[in-house]
Amino acid sequence: MRETDVTVLGLGLMGQAIAGAFLKGGREVTVWNRTAAKADALVAQGAQRGETAAEAVGASGLVVVVLTDYTAVTGVLEPLADTLAGRTVVNLTSGTAAQAREFAEWAAKRDITYLDGAIMAIPQVVGTDDAFLLYGGAKEVYDAHEAVLRDLGASGTIHLGADHGLASLYDVALLGIMWGTLNSFLHGAALVGTAGVDAKGFSEFANKWIGAITGFVSAYAAQIDEGSYTALDASIDTHAATVDHLIEESEAAGVNAEVPKLVKSFTDRARAEGHGLDSYAAMITQFRRP
Amino acid sequence: MRETDVTVLGLGLMGQAIAGAFLKGGREVTVWNRTAAKADALVAQGAQRGETAAEAVGASGLVVVVLTDYTAVTGVLEPLADTLAGRTVVNLTSGTAAQAREFAEWAAKRDITYLDGAIMAIPQVVGTDDAFLLYGGAKEVYDAHEAVLRDLGASGTIHLGADHGLASLYDVALLGIMWGTLNSFLHGAALVGTAGVDAKGFSEFANKWIGAITGFVSAYAAQIDEGSYTALDASIDTHAATVDHLIEESEAAGVNAEVPKLVKSFTDRARAEGHGLDSYAAMITQFRRP
Ligand SMILES: NC(=O)c1ccc[n+]([C@@H]2O[C@H](COP(=O)([O-])OP(=O)(O)OC[C@H]3O[C@@H](n4cnc5c(N)ncnc54)[C@H](OP(=O)(O)O)[C@@H]3O)[C@@H](O)[C@H]2O)c1
Ligand SMILES: NC(=O)c1ccc[n+]([C@@H]2O[C@H](COP(=O)([O-])OP(=O)(O)OC[C@H]3O[C@@H](n4cnc5c(N)ncnc54)[C@H](OP(=O)(O)O)[C@@H]3O)[C@@H](O)[C@H]2O)c1
Repeated sequence: MRETDVTVLGLGLMGQAIAGAFLKGGREVTVWNRTAAKADALVAQGAQRGETAAEAVGASGLVVVVLTDYTAVTGVLEPLADTLAGRTVVNLTSGTAAQAREFAEWAAKRDITYLDGAIMAIPQVVGTDDAFLLYGGAKEVYDAHEAVLRDLGASGTIHLGADHGLASLYDVALLGIMWGTLNSFLHGAALVGTAGVDAKGFSEFANKWIGAITGFVSAYAAQIDEGSYTALDASIDTHAATVDHLIEESEAAGVNAEVPKLVKSFTDRARAEGHGLDSYAAMITQFRRP
Repeated sequence: MRETDVTVLGLGLMGQAIAGAFLKGGREVTVWNRTAAKADALVAQGAQRGETAAEAVGASGLVVVVLTDYTAVTGVLEPLADTLAGRTVVNLTSGTAAQAREFAEWAAKRDITYLDGAIMAIPQVVGTDDAFLLYGGAKEVYDAHEAVLRDLGASGTIHLGADHGLASLYDVALLGIMWGTLNSFLHGAALVGTAGVDAKGFSEFANKWIGAITGFVSAYAAQIDEGSYTALDASIDTHAATVDHLIEESEAAGVNAEVPKLVKSFTDRARAEGHGLDSYAAMITQFRRP
């Protein structure tokens, strides 16, 4: 094994994109995957193959891990603690803040330098200027590896703070926005689909409208931080009435209405607590409680 | 009463913005509101005040209506059927497609020309290039009034088709995306708030990420129209595992977890039907059914 700049453990959809971005960045890369065939294309592009995870880890001072979950991560890394000692692990596997913090403690005890990261991008976007990656852990560790990590997202690579749990916390909070947006898009596409509109046509309206929604997000964020919810645009009463239309329309068209019904349940609770004339920002009160 | 270009009935948050945009567009405007004082600022800006709705309707060939709901619309307009005959009503009040179609039938019987519209904008944005307004009804009626209607949104004024119900259908489908995005933003803000992050800070990450989400919307729309759901980015299995993290994280932080729990229930159903290895676009199957 020759010494390389970075080792990538895990070559699923995301790991392949990551190793590919490092190669494109001009790094010497060692790769390993449980199912060895997934390394073939990368090896053809110049990556060095580790026959075992231990061999791959031994090749670089920086080890990037991107496996299904923390069970897989501990399964692969724990037996390699001795080889990992003195090296830096950057774990891009999704998990909870608690899992990241627990793993950071394990690493610290074994003299393994640790940075936890989250990838807010699909594989196709990794390595482009649209990629967005978040890191939590000691600033000096981040600084030492920032240049290499920027191969994955030149302008979207961000250090959040020393807490190893921060990347996962932001990750799930942001992924939640993705599911919320996608599910309501799918619901809308199903609804207008009953009138013969195709998903592509609807997606163009949706994406134009989503641009406007980012404006609402900014305005409501300011109100939330101030704790004052004057309805400058539309009141929760007005929203609630319109949610009813979406429920009725969905039921009339025979599409699923669970998403707007949950929205309605939240607006009803906010109104019952006296927020009917407030702006939608006042709905934060409903999300702050279990 | 002098003859004017357009009459606006209803001067709530939205009606005031609409009348203001017509004035800014250089139109002669007549206004009426049940609570008369809401007309004062517009009258000071040059609008003519109708003392009664009948008087206001009599002043213009084009009557724009923006009241709370269809109950208010029929309450105000039905007694004025004779005055309205031969004029055009553009109804921007939110409702269902069925309500719009029913009202269009009522109008047709009384020789009232009718266009149904939906405003995809907050009052502050009405009249700017970011405003987005949708219309359903006869193309020639839309064409006859398009120039005036463009005062409300120069580049975002769109005729959807002859069906009077279309504007409402798109409206609720698009509003659903707003609630889906806003609720998941509020949930995320509550979650990262427990780690001391303010809503404004989180909103900047959120809006950057929402930009990426519009890319997913486009990609999934294409797969939905093709009916082929190859996971080029992430599988539903991967999504489902990560939703669990959001639920756990929310419960650990003591914030509301209902939104991700509903997401999980949808991904579980899709997996039970064999879509675990498909892309998120395959979730459309869950929304097409009650
Ligand atoms: N795809 C995305 O869009 C995306 C975006 C952001 C974050 N992520 C995160 O990135 C991580 C990987 O996602 P992915 O899309 O690449 O998933 P994937 O295509 O399913 O790949 C999973 C990888 O983990 C390996 N693995 C799983 N269990 C293992 C074990 N016990 N021992 C050794 N290797 C094991 C797999 O090896 P085999 O090939 O041998 O099965 C494979 O390399 C996940 O945490 C995911 O949440 C993905
Ligand atoms: N605000 C937004 O961001 C927004 C965006 C898109 C669409 N819309 C839609 O626009 C419409 C108006 O919304 P808004 O925000 O302007 O609401 P609003 O501020 O609550 O105003 C409601 C208006 O309706 C009038 N009204 C209600 N019931 C009436 C009745 N029975 N007879 C006569 N007038 C009656 C009110 O008169 P009084 O002043 O006398 O009460 C007021 O002018 C709604 O359908 C809403 O869904 C609003």
